[in-house]
Amino acid sequence: MYFGGVDVEELADKYGTPLIVTDENIVRENYRAYVRAFSEFKDEISSVYDVDICYAVKANGSIAILRILAQEGAGADVVSGCELKAAMLAGIPSDKIIFNGNAKTDDELRLAVETGVLLCLDSLDEAEALSEIAHGLQLPSSDQPSSDQPSLPVERERVHVAVRVNPDISVKTHPKIATALKNSKFGIPAADIFNTFRRISLMKLIKLRGIHCHIGSQILDVSVFQEAAEKMLRIASSLQREYDIDFVDIGGGLGIKYSEDDVQPTPHDLADALKAAFRVAKLRRPVKLVLEPGRSIVGNASILLTKVQSVKRTAERNFAAVDAGFNILIRPAMYGAYHEIIPASCMRTDAENNRTDEFEEYTIVGPLCESGDVLGEHRKLPRLKRGEILVIMNVGAYGLSMSSQYNMRPRCAEVLVCNGKTELIRERETFGDLIRHQIIPPRLLKKLHDCSTCMGFND
Amino acid sequence: MYFGGVDVEELADKYGTPLIVTDENIVRENYRAYVRAFSEFKDEISSVYDVDICYAVKANGSIAILRILAQEGAGADVVSGCELKAAMLAGIPSDKIIFNGNAKTDDELRLAVETGVLLCLDSLDEAEALSEIAHGLQLPSSDQPSSDQPSLPVERERVHVAVRVNPDISVKTHPKIATALKNSKFGIPAADIFNTFRRISLMKLIKLRGIHCHIGSQILDVSVFQEAAEKMLRIASSLQREYDIDFVDIGGGLGIKYSEDDVQPTPHDLADALKAAFRVAKLRRPVKLVLEPGRSIVGNASILLTKVQSVKRTAERNFAAVDAGFNILIRPAMYGAYHEIIPASCMRTDAENNRTDEFEEYTIVGPLCESGDVLGEHRKLPRLKRGEILVIMNVGAYGLSMSSQYNMRPRCAEVLVCNGKTELIRERETFGDLIRHQIIPPRLLKKLHDCSTCMGFND
Repeated sequence: MYFGGVDVEELADKYGTPLIVTDENIVRENYRAYVRAFSEFKDEISSVYDVDICYAVKANGSIAILRILAQEGAGADVVSGCELKAAMLAGIPSDKIIFNGNAKTDDELRLAVETGVLLCLDSLDEAEALSEIAHGLQLPSSDQPSSDQPSLPVERERVHVAVRVNPDISVKTHPKIATALKNSKFGIPAADIFNTFRRISLMKLIKLRGIHCHIGSQILDVSVFQEAAEKMLRIASSLQREYDIDFVDIGGGLGIKYSEDDVQPTPHDLADALKAAFRVAKLRRPVKLVLEPGRSIVGNASILLTKVQSVKRTAERNFAAVDAGFNILIRPAMYGAYHEIIPASCMRTDAENNRTDEFEEYTIVGPLCESGDVLGEHRKLPRLKRGEILVIMNVGAYGLSMSSQYNMRPRCAEVLVCNGKTELIRERETFGDLIRHQIIPPRLLKKLHDCSTCMGFND
Repeated sequence: MYFGGVDVEELADKYGTPLIVTDENIVRENYRAYVRAFSEFKDEISSVYDVDICYAVKANGSIAILRILAQEGAGADVVSGCELKAAMLAGIPSDKIIFNGNAKTDDELRLAVETGVLLCLDSLDEAEALSEIAHGLQLPSSDQPSSDQPSLPVERERVHVAVRVNPDISVKTHPKIATALKNSKFGIPAADIFNTFRRISLMKLIKLRGIHCHIGSQILDVSVFQEAAEKMLRIASSLQREYDIDFVDIGGGLGIKYSEDDVQPTPHDLADALKAAFRVAKLRRPVKLVLEPGRSIVGNASILLTKVQSVKRTAERNFAAVDAGFNILIRPAMYGAYHEIIPASCMRTDAENNRTDEFEEYTIVGPLCESGDVLGEHRKLPRLKRGEILVIMNVGAYGLSMSSQYNMRPRCAEVLVCNGKTELIRERETFGDLIRHQIIPPRLLKKLHDCSTCMGFND
C-alpha cells in the first residue's frame, strides 16, 4: 500500500509503529475545496461581504498541519489558550482567529484581548469576566497613545465579540458530538439572545459584532446546516435593528466518509445549503460569513500504521491484537466509530496485490487493558500473522488530538508525506516524557516508611 | 473543606486549578487493609504458601504513589514496558512484578526477560515470540557463567510465565471494563488451556509457573471473585497433574464507593470469598496467591479541584462550566461513571459550614468542545458562582492515568498531602510540552506555498 507516494510498510520499518502518516496534498486539497466552493459566495449573495474559513484546530493541532493551512491562507477556530498560541506560532494571523469555548479562564480571556482575536462568548458570566479583564488592561483609545503598560496590540477601543447561540437543532450524529440540542451546554438559547445582547451592550469595553453556532460534528446531511443558518440569519436580522451585527459564524461539522455506507457531502453542497438560507434571509446589512471546518479538512489526510502483535483464535472469535489502542485513536472505544482497517500488504501495485489467502473474520483489538479497547469488529481480512502491518484509515481528525498515555504508552510519531517524500513532524515520546514533570519527595526515598506522624504507623 | 489536613481552597489558590490532590495516608491505609486481610491467609489455607499484593499500576502510575507503595512492600502488576520501568524506578523489586497485557511488543518481551519479571502470556503467538526472543538473548544456564553478551540478570535457566485464562465470568459492571466474558479479547478460553500449556511446555526456554485471570473492574459483589477463583483452582488442580503450577493470580477489580448507593466490599470480604474457593479446591501442591488491586488502593485517595468559570441558567438547565473536563477525568464521559461533586466551601469547620443558600440543580460541564464533556448531571448544590472551587471526589483511579491534552489543554499539577503538609509531585504542563516533539519542516516556513510538485499547484 502506498500513501502520498510512499510505501507504508517501509515507513513502518523506518519509523516504527504505531505511526501516523499525513498526506500534505490531501490537507491542501481539502482546504482548497472549501476555497473553491465559497469563492463566488460573496458575488452571488449580496448580504455577504466576505467568507472566512477558520480551520478547527481541535480536530488536529499538529503544528506542521497548521503551518500548511496558514500557507493556504486559512484562519483558525481555537478553543483554548494553547490552541490560540499554536495557531499564531504556525503563522495564522490574529484577525483570522476566533476563540470559541464554554469555560474560558481569566488567563485565556486576557490572552484573547491581548492578541486581538475575535472572542466568542458562551455566557453572560463570561462577558462580565471579559469586561473586568478588559478594564484591567490598558486599552489604547483613539486619542490616547499606548503607554508602557501591557496593552492591546490592535488599534481598537473595545474587545470584539460574538455570542454563541444554541439554535436547538437536532442532527443525526453521536449524542456526544451533537452540540446544539436544547439541553446542550453550549451557547445561549435563541429565546434569551436579545436579553443577553442588551446586557452585554451595556459593557463599555465590549463591542458586539455577531453571532456564532456550531450544531455538531460528523454531519452527513447538509440540510441541517441550512436549517441552522436560517435560524441564525433570522436572529441576526432582528439583532441588526439595534446592533451593528456584521458577523455570522455557522461553525463546522461537515462529515466525512468513514464507511462504505457514508455519502460524504462536499463543501459545494454546504455552500449551496447556506446560499439557500441567505437568499430567504432579510439581513439589514451585509455580514462576514465564517465557517469552521475541522474533520473535513484533515480527517481523510492521515492513516495509522499499527503492527499485529498476536493473533488468537478462539471458538468465539479471531482476535488480532495490534500495538495501537484507544490511547492513540479513541473514536471507536468512545463513540463506537467505524474506521476502515486494511492490511498494508493488500494495496501494493497490482502485480503484488494478489493475496489469495483465505479471508477470515477478525476483531482488531489494541494493547490496552480494557475490554473496550477494540478498533474494529467483524472485519473480513486475509489471514493475519504477528508482525504484519495494518492500516487504520481516516484518523486525521480527533486522532492524536485526543490521544492519551494510558497504560503508560508513549505517544507515537507522525510523518508528513508528499509526492513520495517523507518528513518527520512529531518525534515518538519516550519513557522520560511520561515522568518528566514528576517529583518524588526526598523523604519518600528512604527505604522504609518512617514518617511517624503518618497515621501513627512506625514501621 | 479539608483533605489530608489541608484547606483545599488554599491549595487551589497556591497551585492553581485544575489540581489533583492525593492523600498519602489513604493510599497507605488502603494497601495495609489488604495486608491485614490477607495476613493469615497462608496460615488458614494450607494450599497457599504465600500471598503477593501487586498494585495495578494502570490505575495510577504517579511515581510518588508507586514509591509510597514500594515502601509499604507492594508488588506491581504492569501492562507495558514503561509501566515496568516506572515500577522499578519506584523501587518495586522485579520478583514482585507481573507483566500482563494482550499485545506485548518484541521490545517489551525483551525487557521482561532481561528484568526477570514474571510474564503473563495472553496467547500462543506471544509464547512463540517470547521463545524466539529468549533464544536470542544469552540465558545463563547453571553450568555456564555469564559472558559479556546481554544476559538475564536473574539466576534462571528459563523465563517464568503464567498464562492468562478467560474464565467466562459475567460481572455486573460497565461492559467496557468487564474483561472475562467469552468474547473478551483477553486470555485463553478454559477449553483451550490444556492444549496451550502442552504447546508452551515444548518451548525449552519457557517455564510454566501458573495461571492468571482478571474478571473486570469496579466489582462490588465479591461472590464473582469466589466463582472465578473456583474455576481457576479447578484448572490449576488439573494442570498440576502434568505441570509444576505454583502460582494462581486472580487479578484485581474490587470496586469502591462512588455514589451513596454503592456498598463497597472490603479486602476482608475478598479474602473470605477466596478462602471459600480454596477450601473446596483440591490442589495437588501449594500455590502462591497473587492479587492485583488498583482502584481499591488509590481510587478514594485523590480529589480533583476545579474552578467554576461560568454559570449559565437556561429554561432547560443550570450549567456550571469548570476548568476540568474529560481531558483530565474521562470516566463520566466514557463510562457514564458517577463522581460526587462538592463545593469546596461546603465542608470547612462547622462554624463556617453554614451555607444557607438556596440549593439548585446543576449540570457540571467541562471546558472541552464536545457535548459529552459533562462531569455530573442533576446535582443539587448551593447556588454557584464564577471563581468558586468544586471538588470532584474519588479520582485517584483511572483519572490522570487516562488523561489527554485534548483541546490543547496542558495536564494539571498533582500535590501529595499528608497530615497538613503539602508536596508537589507533578508539575503543571505548559504550552511547550504540547509542542515539544513537533517539527515544522523548514520548507513549510516559506510564506507562500511554492512546492510546484505538489498537485501541480503553483501559488
